[in-house]
Formats: sequence, C-alpha cells, structure tokens
Amino acid sequence: MIKKIAPLLSALLVLLSSVTAIAQKSDSAIYTDAGTLMLIGKPKITDSIYQRIDSVETRNMPDAVRRLAQRSAGIAVLFETNSSFIRAKWKLSNEVYLSNMTPIGHSGLDLYCLKNGKWQYVSVGKPDKGIMQDGTLIQNMDTTMKQFMLYLPLYNGLSDLQLGVAQDAVLKKPVQRGINIAKRVVVYGSSIVQGASASRAGMAYPAILQRRTGYDVINLGFSGSAKMEIELAEYLSTVPADCYVLDCIPNPSPEQIRDRSYNFIKLLRSRQPDVPIILVETVFRENGNFDTRIGKNVRSQNEEIRKTYERLRKEGIKNFYYIESARLTGNDHDATVDGVHLTDLGFMRIADAIQPVLEKAIDKYYQSEKILGAAGSPLQK
Amino acid sequence: MIKKIAPLLSALLVLLSSVTAIAQKSDSAIYTDAGTLMLIGKPKITDSIYQRIDSVETRNMPDAVRRLAQRSAGIAVLFETNSSFIRAKWKLSNEVYLSNMTPIGHSGLDLYCLKNGKWQYVSVGKPDKGIMQDGTLIQNMDTTMKQFMLYLPLYNGLSDLQLGVAQDAVLKKPVQRGINIAKRVVVYGSSIVQGASASRAGMAYPAILQRRTGYDVINLGFSGSAKMEIELAEYLSTVPADCYVLDCIPNPSPEQIRDRSYNFIKLLRSRQPDVPIILVETVFRENGNFDTRIGKNVRSQNEEIRKTYERLRKEGIKNFYYIESARLTGNDHDATVDGVHLTDLGFMRIADAIQPVLEKAIDKYYQSEKILGAAGSPLQK
Repeated sequence: MIKKIAPLLSALLVLLSSVTAIAQKSDSAIYTDAGTLMLIGKPKITDSIYQRIDSVETRNMPDAVRRLAQRSAGIAVLFETNSSFIRAKWKLSNEVYLSNMTPIGHSGLDLYCLKNGKWQYVSVGKPDKGIMQDGTLIQNMDTTMKQFMLYLPLYNGLSDLQLGVAQDAVLKKPVQRGINIAKRVVVYGSSIVQGASASRAGMAYPAILQRRTGYDVINLGFSGSAKMEIELAEYLSTVPADCYVLDCIPNPSPEQIRDRSYNFIKLLRSRQPDVPIILVETVFRENGNFDTRIGKNVRSQNEEIRKTYERLRKEGIKNFYYIESARLTGNDHDATVDGVHLTDLGFMRIADAIQPVLEKAIDKYYQSEKILGAAGSPLQK
Repeated sequence: MIKKIAPLLSALLVLLSSVTAIAQKSDSAIYTDAGTLMLIGKPKITDSIYQRIDSVETRNMPDAVRRLAQRSAGIAVLFETNSSFIRAKWKLSNEVYLSNMTPIGHSGLDLYCLKNGKWQYVSVGKPDKGIMQDGTLIQNMDTTMKQFMLYLPLYNGLSDLQLGVAQDAVLKKPVQRGINIAKRVVVYGSSIVQGASASRAGMAYPAILQRRTGYDVINLGFSGSAKMEIELAEYLSTVPADCYVLDCIPNPSPEQIRDRSYNFIKLLRSRQPDVPIILVETVFRENGNFDTRIGKNVRSQNEEIRKTYERLRKEGIKNFYYIESARLTGNDHDATVDGVHLTDLGFMRIADAIQPVLEKAIDKYYQSEKILGAAGSPLQK
C-alpha cells in the first residue's frame, strides 16, 4: 500500500512546494537603492554618499579623523512608502567588535516614522556577524502612506543600502520633509558625539536633538580624535551652520586644550562672525571618581577650557555659550556603560541639558538682523 | 665601531629587560578565587557557585530554562580591599553574540563601591572575543579599605573568576554587608528581567532595585522562556522570599496565559500564603505600534493576565499587587533597543514604576503579624 501511494505523495509534495514558491514570490520585495532617496545629516554633499566628509576634504586632517569621517554616524535616509513591510539589505565596511556598544548601535539601522507630527521609533535592522546584512525591519503595517527616517550605523561605514517594499507599493523620495528642517546645527566632538554608546543610532544625542527640535543636526563626532587641530576649525568653518556645538573637550590633553582651544575658536569665529557657538565641558568620567589620575585629568581638561572661555568672554566674543559639566549627565553616576561613554540614559540627560541652550542660541540668532547671511536651507543630496 | 659596541648593547638590552621584568613583578597582583568571597543574588546555595539553579532542581523544567539557569544574571560578589587596583580574570562558558546587547552587558563584569552609604558605579570588566578574559577593572585608587560589589555577566555563564589586588593589600570577605540586605525579593520573568538589554549587569532592573532598596533581589529571568509552567511555580515557592515579583507576561502566548496563570499564582499562594505577590503586565512592544500582529498579541497578553488578576481579586486573594503596562516605560517610545528589550533608560523607568509598589508591599507584610514565618535573612554561600 505504501508503495502504491508513494508516487502520489511525491506529486503532492512537488505541488505543495510550488505553492510555497508562489507564496514566497508574491511576498517578495522590490528593492530600491537608498542613495536615490533623501539623505539628511550630512555636512556637505560627498562623492561617497554614506560617508560624512570626502577624502579630498580630509587631506590635512589626522589619519584617525580621515578614517572616522567615513563612518555614517548621524546620516539618515528619508523616504515615503505605503508598503505593509520594509526590508533592508546593507553592506558594511568592516566587521566591528566593540565591548561597549551593541551591534545594532555600531552596525545596525534604526527606523522612525512620522506620526501625529512627531518622529516615533518603529524598529531596527539587526546585524549578524559579517559584512553583508539582510533583514525585515517591520511588517504587518497598515498601508497608508507614511514618511520614514532610517538612521545609519554609528561606528561602521556603508557601501550599499537597498530598501525593499511590497511589489504593489510605492517607495519614493519625500516631496517635502514631514518636519521642517530649515536650520542646521553642526556638532563637533568625541566618541560621545559620534554615538558611543547609544543602543541604536537614533539615541545618539545629536539624533535626539534633531528629532526634538526639527533642526538638521550634523554629527561630526570623531571617536577619540576630536583634538581641536586647526585644520578641523578650518573645515568646520566651511560647513554651513546656524549653530556650532563644540563638545570636543574629552579627547585633547589639558595641554592640548591650553595650546589649541583659543586659536581654534578664534578661527571659527573669524570665519563665521555671527553664528552662535556653544562650548561644552567634558562630561566627568565616572571611573575618575575612583581612579585619581583620571579624575585629575578630567578636572584639568575642564579648568583649561574654562580659562579659554573666560578669555574669550573678556574679549567680548558674541553669540557664545558655555555648558558646565555638572549639568550634563545627572548625579547618580549611572549614565555610562564604562565610566566614559553615555548610554541612552546618559544621552537623554545630555540632550535635556543642551537643548534649551541650543534653542535659545538659534532663536536669538534669528531674531538678530544677521540672519540673511545664515546657513538657511540645508545642503543635501 | 658598531661591531665593537654590539655585545655591549646586547648586554644592556638583557639588563633592561630584566629591570622591566622586576618592575612587572613588583606591580603584579595576587589573585583570589572569588568563590571564597561573599555571593549575593542567589535563590539558594548551588554546587556550581556562579549558576542560579542547580541542575538537580531544574530536572522538571523546560530545556531552555535549564540552560538559562546556568547564566550568572543577578549574582554579585561582595568583597573588601584596600588595594590601589583591582584586576579580574574570568572564564566564560560561551562566546556570545547578541545584536541587542553590549559584550560588557552579556559577558562583562560591573563594579560598584559603597561610598557614603550608597552603592556607586566604579568601572567595568570589558570582555574581548573568546572565553578567557583578563583585565584591570580600576587602578590609582586611594588605599583606604572599601567594600565593593561586582555584578557577574547577564547572558553568559562563569566557570571561574579570580580577583587580583596589590601584593601588600588585603582582600577579604566582608564581615558584614555595607548595606543591610535582610529582605529578599524574587523576580521571575523574561529576557527583560534577565537584563536584556542593560548596558552592563548593574543596570538590569532587579539590580537597580537591589541598590536602591537594600533588598537582596534574586534575578530569575529566563530569556524567552518565562512561560508560567507549573514546575516553575513549584520551584519559586521553595525559594525564600519576602516578595515575589511576577514579570512573566512577555513570553507566554495569550492562550498560555489563560491556561496557566491562574493555577500558577494559586499554587504559589497556597505554598506561601502570606508573602506578597506583585504581578506586572508585559511592557508594550514598541514595534507593536506599527506591526499590527505584534500589537494585537501584546494587548491580548495583557487582557488575559488582567482577567486572571480580577478573578483572584474576586476570590479575595491577599497581599496581591498589580502594575499596569502604561506605567512601566514612559510614553516617548524610546526606552528600548529593538522595540522589545529595555535599555538603561527603560530600566530606570521600570525600576521607578516597581519600586514604590515593592516597598509598600514589603512594609505592609512586615507590619503584619505574619512576619515570623517570612524569609528573614538571606541564604548565601
């Protein structure tokens, strides 16, 4: 009996597997190169679209900065779709291991949707080990047209990003951004600015400020390498901005701060005479509460930048703001993953501290008569 | 000339390297097996000291729970030392990769120190890839005697842990704990209880509650596998406790909650007639705001557990508390890494929500006449 039904069973299996194949096909996605959509969070247009600064512009910068400028921190893709699902294939530059970051944070994608006039978290693209990544970001959505924002990896580079939607769905560049981003903020700083150790790209504090304020916030965080070389001041001064945030005190030594910070700020001010500058002390390193050498070094860093601040104030520098360390990350000592790098908890707190100063600085700048020379509408691809 | 001085140079190099060797030796640490110190956060004494439940007790539990019971989540080592530095060598059970956790969180160590009557973060042990780990946790400390607490990995097991201090320093088991931990809380739950996705072990919410309240908080989080099987209720009822927190709604299906939750709680209540029980709804899954299937499932989970809660209330169950989902993680939708698992930001919020209910439940329990039968002083190695 078994023998007799065996051919029938085989035929049935073939039939079943072709049904499955059809189901998979009807469920398959149409992929679009994200480079054809809208990119925000970039200092300027670049040839390699997912890197922050073109190599031609980093020629005179330190090697570490050159390398880090290729990371996609702070860049996001804006698009609209009515697909019930969104998939992504992305190719990373490197296989990264960082003990203090999640793979989602250093190499993953972070998706938000504009809902009732606010950006709301949707889901993430989870990277596996390796370079080639492929995953469903979200599915089972209603099929109304929505605007999405996809943040790119914080501590990796991207050489390709493809977004997949349903075959009968629309995926397009937004005609206009759901939230007006007419003002630009450029943040220059250390690993903390770059986003270590946000759990996902949208929780780095420049991204939190971007969603809260609607400004286009440019992430120029260079992990361990924001040392105020004059070449960086030269470059910053060429990046259109309505405010510069200098959160670069964690990396240089106290001596480097003494030697470089005054000239750095003076050069930026001379090239951009009216654009507000917010200078931020380094967060206190929590392990510096026990490691006396680290504690002493952090205090010296802040003493040196405070001297520069006071010198510039005495000289009558305008549109210049200063945020003290004590206001940045709370007082429970639990805002970091490793004593240095902020978690999402720390990033929420530092965003709370910087946001009112930033909004005040930009409001005052726009109320002045000088705004005609301001950055105005942002550059983008 | 070169030829003539070459032998001298060689001799000098030998001399220099032996000087270096001596310097390293004088700086070298004396290592102590952490198992000889004080362990807290364990449900009961176990043969394998860094696992939560002995295999003899997990015989009737699901395979996943048996495996997860070997993870060291929630366990901490208490010790005192006057060394200027603390080093650690630790051997992990597995090489773990989790896209939604930092290696420090899943496989690292997290050090706190008792300072002015409060536990304060000191530093972490950062794991590299691989099994054998070795690192300096902190150095350059003053050499007063201090009490430390070292949290063990959340999503890995430990087969060995050695703590290194200066040769002339004392390292010892505390005569008494710096903070009195006379009351015990047992938390049974999912990956969120186990600590996904705390940045480091001390930021899982049971650990936050432990530091804030001074209670010994036992982490019985079983990632993806807290499904209210009756065997787990049997086991829980044998773990001495002054309060049980049941945060196990994220894992079972709505049908499983309907079929199991009433009997689960009834069994625990019958075996422990007076010990307070706090029942926690599942956190809403943030991706469920867009994925309609996930959203529906989460709402159904909470509807089912709410029915069980109301049934038990009608029956007149005593010392029974209920925390609704809406109170747990804020309303900005940014408390998770991946839509499901809480970051340090989410863990702070859920600790804020549970802490007052927990303190009220235990205070009321101790004010009653029933306390003579309570857990009293904690079990420990």
